[in-house]
Amino acid sequence: MIEAIGLDADDTLWENETFFRVTESEFVAMLSDHCDSEAVTGRLYEVERRNLARYGFGIKGFMLSMVQTAIELTDGRVDGRTIGRILDLGQEMLAHPVDLIAGVPQALDAMSGRRLILITKGDLIDQERKIAASGLAERFESVEILADKTPESYARVLDRHAIRPDRFLMAGNSMKSDVLPVLELGGFAAFIPHDLTWVAEHADAPDHTRLHQLATIADLPKLLACLEAGT
Amino acid sequence: MIEAIGLDADDTLWENETFFRVTESEFVAMLSDHCDSEAVTGRLYEVERRNLARYGFGIKGFMLSMVQTAIELTDGRVDGRTIGRILDLGQEMLAHPVDLIAGVPQALDAMSGRRLILITKGDLIDQERKIAASGLAERFESVEILADKTPESYARVLDRHAIRPDRFLMAGNSMKSDVLPVLELGGFAAFIPHDLTWVAEHADAPDHTRLHQLATIADLPKLLACLEAGT
Repeated sequence: MIEAIGLDADDTLWENETFFRVTESEFVAMLSDHCDSEAVTGRLYEVERRNLARYGFGIKGFMLSMVQTAIELTDGRVDGRTIGRILDLGQEMLAHPVDLIAGVPQALDAMSGRRLILITKGDLIDQERKIAASGLAERFESVEILADKTPESYARVLDRHAIRPDRFLMAGNSMKSDVLPVLELGGFAAFIPHDLTWVAEHADAPDHTRLHQLATIADLPKLLACLEAGT
Repeated sequence: MIEAIGLDADDTLWENETFFRVTESEFVAMLSDHCDSEAVTGRLYEVERRNLARYGFGIKGFMLSMVQTAIELTDGRVDGRTIGRILDLGQEMLAHPVDLIAGVPQALDAMSGRRLILITKGDLIDQERKIAASGLAERFESVEILADKTPESYARVLDRHAIRPDRFLMAGNSMKSDVLPVLELGGFAAFIPHDLTWVAEHADAPDHTRLHQLATIADLPKLLACLEAGT
């Protein structure tokens, strides 16, 4: 019944948002002489949203948005050394080791007879680095790095792999990116919330028969078995 | 004999390097109070090379490298407004219309019965924007955006499309990215030099029977006909 499973990567297979939050805290501290922390985080989010269509998702765009936020909030008075420290923060993020989320290897083991497709979005080179560093690449039939996760981009992936949407299940931590577009196509979704998820990925959960919420990725193999047993 | 043709995009289908050069000139002018132009371009190239493994190819990495170069060359004394102007320059690049290279639509028309695959490298979102803006997407069986063009990444593309390397021809302006890796795999290459090509893409042309140099993409359909006639 379910012939292929899509798995999100950031904050589904490995930690991601936590590194953004740590960096953001250091960024806020850098600008504490100029602004209070809420003003900095509020403006940073606003700048990120403004730049999203042009920069897409990922660390390089985040670095550029931090630089821009520092300039805007200080009316251009921020000094070059502070900007240099922002670049250093971003470079540290780009070099950070990959921390797998608990239960991931075991869940992948339990699904090893199935068609598994890793479907992530963001910066091509950074996602490829993390996939390689994760040691999980061989578990997947295919790795798909998308600029954004929309019904159209999922449809292209399913089409390329000759997978019927009504036989596809996507698992991930983002209601907006992993769940809603797949339900719209007629597929199944396993929503696995993470403690930290970027606010831009939030969306209201629809009341939907093909949507299932799991506490952890460890519950995914069991969900698949239940779906296939029609229970 | 040739069952699929790969086409590079930047500086093969549309102009690209020229916009980097224009931006670089403006960047040099911004720092003219601090350094002469050769020192700026030399340092910028050095910083770009240093960052390549982490940032990959594309405009966002170029923006970050310009910011870093400005900080390094002024020992942190560059002011926030100048950094803001660097970001503006990059944003203009990201919004620039796509200028097709002369003869491209006609050459694609002449090859319309063939399997054509667009194979480009760089920033996912920026490449997708340019492909959409080019109006050429429908001409291609598939669009492949790679983090880098290596024998391994070409091999994955050919494998995914079930194309034998010895029946594949890649056409592009970069000896390093479009020609050498494909020859190494046993494929054919059409090298179509562009007046402007980033120095990091330069490499010596090998003496190779499967390498053909063309003056313009307009000559590509004829080359294919000659190869297939065995002449």
